[in-house]
Amino acid sequence: MFFKQFTVPGMGCLSYLIGCPKAGVACVVDPKRDVDDYIKVARENNLKITHIFETHVHADHISGNMELQSRTGAEICMGTGTPATFAFKPVAEGDIFEFGSVKLEALSTPGHTPNSISLLVTDTARNDKPWMILTGDCMFVGDVGRPDLAGKEMIHEQAENLYDSLFNKLTRLPESIEIFPAHGEGSLCGKGMSSKSSSTVGYEKDSNPIFKLSKEEFLLSMTGSFPDRPKSFTHIITTNKSGVPLLDRCPVVRDLSPLQVKKELDRGVIVLDTRDTASFGGVHIPGSINIGFAKQTANWIGMVIEPDAELILVVTGAEAYSEMLV
Amino acid sequence: MFFKQFTVPGMGCLSYLIGCPKAGVACVVDPKRDVDDYIKVARENNLKITHIFETHVHADHISGNMELQSRTGAEICMGTGTPATFAFKPVAEGDIFEFGSVKLEALSTPGHTPNSISLLVTDTARNDKPWMILTGDCMFVGDVGRPDLAGKEMIHEQAENLYDSLFNKLTRLPESIEIFPAHGEGSLCGKGMSSKSSSTVGYEKDSNPIFKLSKEEFLLSMTGSFPDRPKSFTHIITTNKSGVPLLDRCPVVRDLSPLQVKKELDRGVIVLDTRDTASFGGVHIPGSINIGFAKQTANWIGMVIEPDAELILVVTGAEAYSEMLV
Repeated sequence: MFFKQFTVPGMGCLSYLIGCPKAGVACVVDPKRDVDDYIKVARENNLKITHIFETHVHADHISGNMELQSRTGAEICMGTGTPATFAFKPVAEGDIFEFGSVKLEALSTPGHTPNSISLLVTDTARNDKPWMILTGDCMFVGDVGRPDLAGKEMIHEQAENLYDSLFNKLTRLPESIEIFPAHGEGSLCGKGMSSKSSSTVGYEKDSNPIFKLSKEEFLLSMTGSFPDRPKSFTHIITTNKSGVPLLDRCPVVRDLSPLQVKKELDRGVIVLDTRDTASFGGVHIPGSINIGFAKQTANWIGMVIEPDAELILVVTGAEAYSEMLV
Repeated sequence: MFFKQFTVPGMGCLSYLIGCPKAGVACVVDPKRDVDDYIKVARENNLKITHIFETHVHADHISGNMELQSRTGAEICMGTGTPATFAFKPVAEGDIFEFGSVKLEALSTPGHTPNSISLLVTDTARNDKPWMILTGDCMFVGDVGRPDLAGKEMIHEQAENLYDSLFNKLTRLPESIEIFPAHGEGSLCGKGMSSKSSSTVGYEKDSNPIFKLSKEEFLLSMTGSFPDRPKSFTHIITTNKSGVPLLDRCPVVRDLSPLQVKKELDRGVIVLDTRDTASFGGVHIPGSINIGFAKQTANWIGMVIEPDAELILVVTGAEAYSEMLV
């Protein structure tokens, strides 16, 4: 089998390309918006991407599902009942998808979102038993998903669901099964994750303090405090539910003259200066906001700036600009 | 803990940067020769590289240990008795190295080479029990190391050692422990590895046909046939034992005129054309050898060209040339 984890360092997003080079087919799980990587690696390994799985509707990053579908024609698959307004194949507990020697079995693991799924992966060329599980945002390395994003009114139901998914389903799998989540360090979807991006059922059961809790303690903990929800989350969820506009439909104005910038500023446009603090300190456009492009940039932008704000970016060059787009 | 696997795709070499950002220290295990990556990632994560571990003397690729030591001052550590002529710290069974919250424990696991070690990794911030093991070339994902490289006269002793390392040591570890080897698909150090670059003790025990063998069957299989040993292996082993020359000491002549190339050819220099077959078919220097730069290039070059041959490279541009250097 072919199996590769992709990372978006600053945001802690993890996604996967899984397939069978012999059969020439593959799927992508939880695609990031910059989908070039998947297509490049798929080509290099004789893989046609036929399916796109979303373990849930993401709150922290814009999905690459539409972009990848437009480039490959792959079918988008999500948990049954997912409130998305675009066409997708609903996936229910026990549904099986085969890509040559790769078998994916869907498990319903609600709690982070009401329709979250996990995917049990078997390499039938090696063994009929599963090798690993993609846990989405249900179970992380050193943490578990947060149940509060669906809203305050659902928090108790979600915490109960999360308990069942974690304690009665995922940790009952064989201890040697590898865990590959949808997030690692840097994400705000959990409280405190390890920077290591894989683990095993056995190690997490034994090492994650959450799994030492009684059901009562778990529910109390899970209905308690969580990291602030960035301003961007609601907007991102809405966008992901309704279908993300393709990148070539996102209008971008380049090379503004000082006079043009002034005009836009007067109109209420926000200038986001992505250079380092020293450069910003040296000289900057009055009224601009400085969030240096580094780890966690996206999360900080989401905290500070309204999601529907119009932006002018100050960048150091073309390369920094294309990095911002990811 | 910080844990990152690095790959050299064409050759299947896997190496690791492991450390503790809080304590600001780290080690690199089985470094590839292009060490810029480790230094860049270490800097980004507040890690000073203080130790370099070699699980064994590599036969298939030139080590980056000298290059990395010259850039960081880190100490090189190898199994006790390793026949290297440069200074290194000998590592014996049970030796422990700490990098902040990261603990490495050495296990003696001979068989691929007589002095091979494995490293058991514990993240003491999470658990006092180990999380994963770096198995070097002893145990792979879907395969085990080949015991024949030390020479025909040692094959039976090496096969016995390999049996003990695999059956009496590594597979007796807890099933949930993750395995991170020094090689993946593309390497000639094993017979047939998975392209997935990690696994677990439990999954390998259950899925690798090797572990179904009796001791007699194992020894018979391990003293049997292996993939051809590239011409380059002896030369690489010798170079790795005696200390790899630093890259800035490797003389390179650039921009040869046709007349100069003719002169060198007459002197017995080999012209290696690394362009694709179509370009080579279009036009090429008479007498040149075409091995397109792609997956497995390094192995093919090692099969076909004597290790001490002088080379003139035909490349498509500066980028292709620097890729060849890795």
